[in-house]
Amino acid sequence: MHLSHVAQMAWFGFLGHLDVAVVEVAGILPDGRLIPSSSVGNNKTWLDQADKIILEVNELQSAGLEGMHDIYYGTQLPPNRKPIPLTHPSDRIGEPYLRCDPAKVIAVVRTRQSDRNSVFAAPDAVSEQIAAHIIDFMSHEVKQGRLPANLLPLQSGVGNIANAVLAGLNKGPFENLTAYTEVLQDGMLDMVRSGKLSFASATALSLSPQATEDFNKNIDFYRERIVLRPQEISNHPELVRRMGVIAMNAMIEADLYGNVNSTHIMGSSIMNGIGGSGDFARNAYLSFFVTPSVAKDGAISCIVPMVSHVDHTEHDVEIIVTEQGLADLRGLAPTERAKLIVERCAHPSFRPQLQDYLDRAAKSSSGLHTPHLLNEALSWHSRFLETGKM
Amino acid sequence: MHLSHVAQMAWFGFLGHLDVAVVEVAGILPDGRLIPSSSVGNNKTWLDQADKIILEVNELQSAGLEGMHDIYYGTQLPPNRKPIPLTHPSDRIGEPYLRCDPAKVIAVVRTRQSDRNSVFAAPDAVSEQIAAHIIDFMSHEVKQGRLPANLLPLQSGVGNIANAVLAGLNKGPFENLTAYTEVLQDGMLDMVRSGKLSFASATALSLSPQATEDFNKNIDFYRERIVLRPQEISNHPELVRRMGVIAMNAMIEADLYGNVNSTHIMGSSIMNGIGGSGDFARNAYLSFFVTPSVAKDGAISCIVPMVSHVDHTEHDVEIIVTEQGLADLRGLAPTERAKLIVERCAHPSFRPQLQDYLDRAAKSSSGLHTPHLLNEALSWHSRFLETGKM
Repeated sequence: MHLSHVAQMAWFGFLGHLDVAVVEVAGILPDGRLIPSSSVGNNKTWLDQADKIILEVNELQSAGLEGMHDIYYGTQLPPNRKPIPLTHPSDRIGEPYLRCDPAKVIAVVRTRQSDRNSVFAAPDAVSEQIAAHIIDFMSHEVKQGRLPANLLPLQSGVGNIANAVLAGLNKGPFENLTAYTEVLQDGMLDMVRSGKLSFASATALSLSPQATEDFNKNIDFYRERIVLRPQEISNHPELVRRMGVIAMNAMIEADLYGNVNSTHIMGSSIMNGIGGSGDFARNAYLSFFVTPSVAKDGAISCIVPMVSHVDHTEHDVEIIVTEQGLADLRGLAPTERAKLIVERCAHPSFRPQLQDYLDRAAKSSSGLHTPHLLNEALSWHSRFLETGKM
Repeated sequence: MHLSHVAQMAWFGFLGHLDVAVVEVAGILPDGRLIPSSSVGNNKTWLDQADKIILEVNELQSAGLEGMHDIYYGTQLPPNRKPIPLTHPSDRIGEPYLRCDPAKVIAVVRTRQSDRNSVFAAPDAVSEQIAAHIIDFMSHEVKQGRLPANLLPLQSGVGNIANAVLAGLNKGPFENLTAYTEVLQDGMLDMVRSGKLSFASATALSLSPQATEDFNKNIDFYRERIVLRPQEISNHPELVRRMGVIAMNAMIEADLYGNVNSTHIMGSSIMNGIGGSGDFARNAYLSFFVTPSVAKDGAISCIVPMVSHVDHTEHDVEIIVTEQGLADLRGLAPTERAKLIVERCAHPSFRPQLQDYLDRAAKSSSGLHTPHLLNEALSWHSRFLETGKM
């Protein structure tokens, strides 16, 4: 599910009845209000919808989190919804605490459990090249007057490649940036600390142990520059589109016409959920999808004739970037997109095969909109499953 | 492209420079303002962006259109965008006229050209069954308290099946309905006339010659009950989600996991653009996709192992309906979805083959999220291309 849909599906009653919610908090005020933890997510909704609540007070969460959150309680159900009055990443439209009916609380549990803190790989040559292509492109767009000098609010997916792109931006030419993103990771915290990023809005932190330590130590600094919101606000289509977010998300593979697979290996095996990538990509001002051009030591091309699973259709993908280059797909017809993706993004060792597929597809279905050879379109994947080679 | 994206892409400068725009209008006021025609579309944007303008005054358009439009001029570019102050389909937030700089007008042309008026087929047994399943489902949702008695604003795609569903609603149990849709066709005009639909918002009319005659004759009646808006407003994600639109769109085929192909026959040949179906389906309160279970006199199943083109992913498709039945996919895991789609929506003559595919896929990739046999997934399509049979 798109993460912006989860909370409202619960309010609509589409997900059934919620009996018990277990909610992590950083603290409980004497009057019963809750200090959210470093992950707000949909806790507002679970606290509201569940019959019974178990509060998990996590003592590893910094007491300094108090005041960093902005919990918006203005959401309604259709047909009574009103505009959400948020126009910039730093706007505050709610309250710093979660409301909770004390009568529903059946237990309060103390814990000192840390997040599943993933350590990010240091940027390597491939990810640095991807970052460089993106920065070049953005610089060009600023020159052409299609982006302000301080860009527009950034969104970044989580992962090593995304982290490396942020590291690139942290050394790049842009100043006074803002972020309106789902999850704030090490690369973005670095940008806040360096001053490149003047303000960041997110729903949760996903920091390495080292970055967590820095965050907790300097929380008074970060509290002035970071706000954490409910997920339905951090990912809301209304807000992402209004602010003109620049969306940067990693992918597993892209196909010749610009469809993107973000979630399923070889069509069947889930690697991760779609998260907020659809919320951001669909409604973004600019929508980037990034990947190294090959995987498995070069045995697999990440540019394929047809993706084995579609999360983002050709209608939602504007710019594809690999270490080989960047394909700007805006305003192009499908066959123009295919040409550019092969030329700019595919690894040279797979270009001839991709071009051959394209040529034969065009010949077999001349004049059609997205020429495909359906008996071959997924053959790269099925061959890999059989032989380990594309 | 999603139609809600077209105008803003032009403003952003992503589609290049616009030299000349040819804009159809119903009339020109003495002060130079324009009475829009029965199709507003993106004319506001073309008038604003083009260097030169040719106005086509269509005398077949009713003079009574004056006052039916609501042209919103509050749109801005990021980072200066504000909430769009529209909360109900009947709200008026703009002006009844298009603004136009007279200095840019290089020609005014008179015409009496009619629309390409398509005649809709009368509802047949299949489309009546589809309509009945939808009405049953909606009645159930009202009983469960998940929909108000007068539902929520309706959106309907254009075409024979969609038209038949509207004819079903016109005979159905729901009163005082509203519509927030892209294109208003015969079926919806019937509902306005009968009083079932108390108000309809759209960007354009797409009426048969007979319905056009009725519309023009009774335009004073319709002008109180219909408003025509720019396409970026009729399809705006912010507004579709806020109002909780009920989206009903036709499709070419759906697959076992709920991915939908709306646009491309056999993966290559475009039948129609995606239009606004993505704008509505993604942001809807409820998102229906409808099709007869078979095509080509039963030679083709419209439920297939894997769609040959994806326009709406599993994340955006909630309810699939054929004449066989309705599959409510909300909250279901992929393999649960597949089971329900085969049982409820597939034609009985294809159910065993679909079930066989599912069984073998599950066996071959046991425990995976969306089990597929990639060397067979598109074989139904490629076999049809070779033999004319699935």
